Amino acid sequence: MPVGELFNPRSIALVGATDKSGWSISTLTNLRTHGFRGPVHLVNPRGGVVHGEQAFRGLSDIPGQVDLAYVMVPTTAVLSVLREGAKLGIRHYVILTAGFGETGPEGAALEAEIVGFARENDLTVLGPNGNGFINAAADVTPYGLPIPSPLLRGSVGVVLQSGALASSVLGFAQARNVGISLLTSMGNESLVTVTDVIDYLVDDPATRAIALFLESVRDPAAFSRAARRALLAGKPIVALKIGRSRLASRTAQAHTGALVGDDNVIDAAFRQLGVVRVRSLEDLIITAGLLAEVGPLPGPRIGVVTPSGGASEIIADRAEDEGLELPAFAPQTVARLREIVPAFGTVQNPLDVTGYVLIDRTLLGRALEAVTADPGVDAVMLLSDLPRLAPPDPAPVYATFAASAKRMAEAPMPVVVVSNVLTDVTEFGRSVQREAGFPYVAGGIEHGMHAIGAAVRWSRAYRAAVEAANGAVPAKAATITPAVEAASAPTVEPAVEAGTGVWAEHRAAALLSSAGIPVVPGELVHDEESAVAAAVGFGYPVVLKAAAEGLGHKSDIGGVRLGLSDARDVERAYREVVAAAAAVPGAGRVGALVQPQRGGGVELLAGVVRDPAWGLTLAVGLGGIWVEALRDTALRVLPVDAAEVRRALDELRGTALLRGARGTEPADLDAVAEVVARVAAFAESLGDDLESLEINPLLVRGSHVEALDALITWRG
Amino acid sequence: MPVGELFNPRSIALVGATDKSGWSISTLTNLRTHGFRGPVHLVNPRGGVVHGEQAFRGLSDIPGQVDLAYVMVPTTAVLSVLREGAKLGIRHYVILTAGFGETGPEGAALEAEIVGFARENDLTVLGPNGNGFINAAADVTPYGLPIPSPLLRGSVGVVLQSGALASSVLGFAQARNVGISLLTSMGNESLVTVTDVIDYLVDDPATRAIALFLESVRDPAAFSRAARRALLAGKPIVALKIGRSRLASRTAQAHTGALVGDDNVIDAAFRQLGVVRVRSLEDLIITAGLLAEVGPLPGPRIGVVTPSGGASEIIADRAEDEGLELPAFAPQTVARLREIVPAFGTVQNPLDVTGYVLIDRTLLGRALEAVTADPGVDAVMLLSDLPRLAPPDPAPVYATFAASAKRMAEAPMPVVVVSNVLTDVTEFGRSVQREAGFPYVAGGIEHGMHAIGAAVRWSRAYRAAVEAANGAVPAKAATITPAVEAASAPTVEPAVEAGTGVWAEHRAAALLSSAGIPVVPGELVHDEESAVAAAVGFGYPVVLKAAAEGLGHKSDIGGVRLGLSDARDVERAYREVVAAAAAVPGAGRVGALVQPQRGGGVELLAGVVRDPAWGLTLAVGLGGIWVEALRDTALRVLPVDAAEVRRALDELRGTALLRGARGTEPADLDAVAEVVARVAAFAESLGDDLESLEINPLLVRGSHVEALDALITWRG
Repeated sequence: MPVGELFNPRSIALVGATDKSGWSISTLTNLRTHGFRGPVHLVNPRGGVVHGEQAFRGLSDIPGQVDLAYVMVPTTAVLSVLREGAKLGIRHYVILTAGFGETGPEGAALEAEIVGFARENDLTVLGPNGNGFINAAADVTPYGLPIPSPLLRGSVGVVLQSGALASSVLGFAQARNVGISLLTSMGNESLVTVTDVIDYLVDDPATRAIALFLESVRDPAAFSRAARRALLAGKPIVALKIGRSRLASRTAQAHTGALVGDDNVIDAAFRQLGVVRVRSLEDLIITAGLLAEVGPLPGPRIGVVTPSGGASEIIADRAEDEGLELPAFAPQTVARLREIVPAFGTVQNPLDVTGYVLIDRTLLGRALEAVTADPGVDAVMLLSDLPRLAPPDPAPVYATFAASAKRMAEAPMPVVVVSNVLTDVTEFGRSVQREAGFPYVAGGIEHGMHAIGAAVRWSRAYRAAVEAANGAVPAKAATITPAVEAASAPTVEPAVEAGTGVWAEHRAAALLSSAGIPVVPGELVHDEESAVAAAVGFGYPVVLKAAAEGLGHKSDIGGVRLGLSDARDVERAYREVVAAAAAVPGAGRVGALVQPQRGGGVELLAGVVRDPAWGLTLAVGLGGIWVEALRDTALRVLPVDAAEVRRALDELRGTALLRGARGTEPADLDAVAEVVARVAAFAESLGDDLESLEINPLLVRGSHVEALDALITWRG
Repeated sequence: MPVGELFNPRSIALVGATDKSGWSISTLTNLRTHGFRGPVHLVNPRGGVVHGEQAFRGLSDIPGQVDLAYVMVPTTAVLSVLREGAKLGIRHYVILTAGFGETGPEGAALEAEIVGFARENDLTVLGPNGNGFINAAADVTPYGLPIPSPLLRGSVGVVLQSGALASSVLGFAQARNVGISLLTSMGNESLVTVTDVIDYLVDDPATRAIALFLESVRDPAAFSRAARRALLAGKPIVALKIGRSRLASRTAQAHTGALVGDDNVIDAAFRQLGVVRVRSLEDLIITAGLLAEVGPLPGPRIGVVTPSGGASEIIADRAEDEGLELPAFAPQTVARLREIVPAFGTVQNPLDVTGYVLIDRTLLGRALEAVTADPGVDAVMLLSDLPRLAPPDPAPVYATFAASAKRMAEAPMPVVVVSNVLTDVTEFGRSVQREAGFPYVAGGIEHGMHAIGAAVRWSRAYRAAVEAANGAVPAKAATITPAVEAASAPTVEPAVEAGTGVWAEHRAAALLSSAGIPVVPGELVHDEESAVAAAVGFGYPVVLKAAAEGLGHKSDIGGVRLGLSDARDVERAYREVVAAAAAVPGAGRVGALVQPQRGGGVELLAGVVRDPAWGLTLAVGLGGIWVEALRDTALRVLPVDAAEVRRALDELRGTALLRGARGTEPADLDAVAEVVARVAAFAESLGDDLESLEINPLLVRGSHVEALDALITWRG
């Protein structure tokens, strides 16, 4: 839904204006004091004087066109306001009134009526149960809570799925001297959605970065499209998505389901979309502020210039946390710095120019110039506090900051300024920034380093997206070619059409094998004699597993026997596993699967599960008994290509094991990635009935990759 | 070194006072404007007027007693000032002058002279190369940098191994309305140490919590003693210790060495000492401020009262990060809250009393009263912002906050107040806190939740320490009783005296076994025939390992053969491992160790390594090939008892595996803890020559615990 006209009305009516309501007072005050240039009409059914002005009894009494109606009437009266407005040709509405879907079924019915009417009449509605918006860039502020003064105009667009937090966010942005372009309080999102606002901000020339507070992503597909547009437009999205602690409660027939959990999927999806996820309101604003100011950073190699040894070491610690590199300075940089830094100082990165800055005010600037010339550095971080209180003669302060600002503007690479600690930018500090042209100051080392790390990660995603869009990088997912031999398939009939319930290993394996995924050979048998014959065929030792439709985790019911080395072993094992499986309620015809025993290597898990919101999601990680114990799993929302799977493998803590720890054979990670990508593509091809597809273990021994067990669960 | 007199002088001389020095100006200004009640004398060898006052030419010209000399003379003149002062009976010095040990060998020699002279003459010296101190509690402020006004007096003692950060810390504490009792800038710590200041603060009635910025812990033993005193006195220590990112670079003959790393040892030591470690300056002050205000919290179950749904969910996320519990409210609490919270709100923990607080100012207070009466909650967190700017009529604001303050003071459990975001407490906010008696407000949900989590952890350590000191809990380490059978020892001679170099498995195993630690049986053989005989004795399958003095990781050189099932296997394996070991330079007489093959269970690592600073340190974790791959290890500085080892085991990510994942037998963790504690005690008994003792793997199968391999490395 396009929202450009909603956010840029030339005339506004406040419907339900009354002296008794703080919201009414605030909205009018905000419009009158923050520069709205059009007429604001007050509407109250009783007419009379409201907020010291003559009120109209109804929308139809207002002379001239109304672009936006801001509705504060009682819940049950909202629909009639929309009806009246629609008749008059008023197309845009903010509904502040609460009492709708958020209160229960009765309110939800009222809300549905409003939605129906708005859709039929092509009305744009923000809310209900929101506080409106602040279009700071256009001086349009129909917003129901007090706006802390001064309202700072700038380039961060803020979208909030929370009314109460808007004041905190505005207050904090002001304290950081971060100006906003637009702030919206979404309310129930019954018509206008977060995604609509993102789309607007991507096209809004005043906006350079987008900050989101999200309780939920209501339409992942639409969100993904908007996020992709923002990324390609070079407008970073920073998101605080809450609900990290809520574990998904799902029936997890496949382990993958239990591993995934809503929040981990959102983490993965955001990363794939280049959306920067933060965990605090402070990081939301500080990071968005930084990204709005500096744009893409060329790389992770940061040169650091500080006036403090202690701060330098905090920065070094935080750089490591954030995956930033602090490379040694080039010899020519070291030589230049030795001429600048006092003899008792140490020339290294991070650079401490020493407390001598208190005596020589040019020291920091000259050091900065030397470091920004270093060829091994992508960007420079300058540790510098803004002044808090104006001294009796502020002129030298302005001059010093103006000189620094000039040096930074002329530097051949981005310079990011970070303060020591997170304290407010004071009025004098703001004045120095404004008058001296001094850039954005990220608030404190702790949050500032997080912001730089986030900027580097976003910049990487941005460059990759632009390259892919320009065709510089082929879309690999579409061009997977078999790089690993398919092993021989089990001797049961392959089934390729969608099924129901749980497919036991022998059927799942056949399906995978038919898709060119290497599967350990196996033979389904239904008596002891055939079991022994199959074992002799494969050669000892062999493995025997109970086989029956609807059978989930065989090892949990004692349905697996490993390392069988002669006919007697096999016969006994057959009897045992069949008996174990037969005891499971609902198991179908019971037999056993005979497979050659594999040894060595590393066992992985590769599973695809359907997330209710984001759809099919891939989990790769250490497999076998390590799945639950270590929960070392990387997730990706499908589709993925082998390169993306390779990156997922690199995220695992157990990656050292795959690379060949203590004498084990190093795994061919590209071969693994090819197979896993093929599993993912195959899962997608199985259509909407697939609930999950899990291979565990997926044995990896060098470049040999082979599924040793598989489980497919269908929906419905 | 006692520092009570140093920090509480009745008269001060500023030696080297000059109009040309900012330090000199600041020091005098600080003393004159922050309430020092004694005489301040200026000393300048040229005499004349300095800072508008008559200066003395030397200390001996000053009439009356001087308690403290604050020294700002050139580096080479410092010693002569001390000589003159000592002659006059001046016993306490702050040396601001730099150019000593921090600049190189020449400076170090000068510093050593000063130290020698001070020791001989029983002088107390803070510095050199520090900025002095601020004893806010006693209005004594000989401090060389400007003190941001107002100086807030309070109950947090601050000790900094950094001069440059002091201003940031002071500024941030002021912004949080956290008052300090004492702040010291330690400088080179050539005489007065951080530990001395901690000892002072523990006894200082004005101090309720201690905040440390540490670059290094110079004397771990002294630090441990001081930290223990502080814990028993109920004075929390919060520490920002930098250097997290620097990995220890050690020759790691044993894996344990590589795993430990200086910083992980400090982490472990701090936890054992009840020192709260934080990673940012913000957390340092916010956490210390909270602990100074609320003291010990009874437990981790927090009831949360907020006016915002969005904030509630951020709080829920952060609570999980911090290990805090947000239990469901008791039925009677729910019933009471239903009468208080508007019908459209949801009664749950965290509680959102809804934006209706804007209309009914008593709502939050009444909800707070209900929640603080909940029997299932240990403490309550109230989300509340202080006002920023005074309204035209501030009286209702004062009244509202005073009413809240009263309710909190009367509550039957601690109430911790946290603001939404981290913005400064303004002058009006400070005035409201002061006039209304409103408690400390932790700055922002992000840092506030960290502070509450830290307070809960500290409180737990505090209670445990007090109980142990009162004899309520026996010192378990001293009373380990064998709970696990000792296995039969290898058939080589046990050696119990300290050795040199690396002791191969057979000698290490014998030593362990002699100490009652269960070790897999083994026989050292020197020819194929004896190898086969030993194998037959144990029963097949067996393991063969190369055995030679000085041989470290046998599997890395192909010196291990597993699963040997007949005589031919054993003979071939003997030839191979002996050949592999013989090829290693410096290997002594080569033979082989024959052991029965063990299967199943979980492999752990239990290692003790000597940290250069903290001494013997225990690492327990997943063993075998998982050591490097997963780095899932918990550390403890020795001594430890079995209960402490048990807690260490509980910290492991792989703990689920030990508890019996997917059908594996659950490990008897108490039995494991007993054995590991015995390993630790035994390592301690081996004396100062022990470099490391490592058991890897330590096989755990149910309550069966057995060392399968061991390595001992001696120093020198």
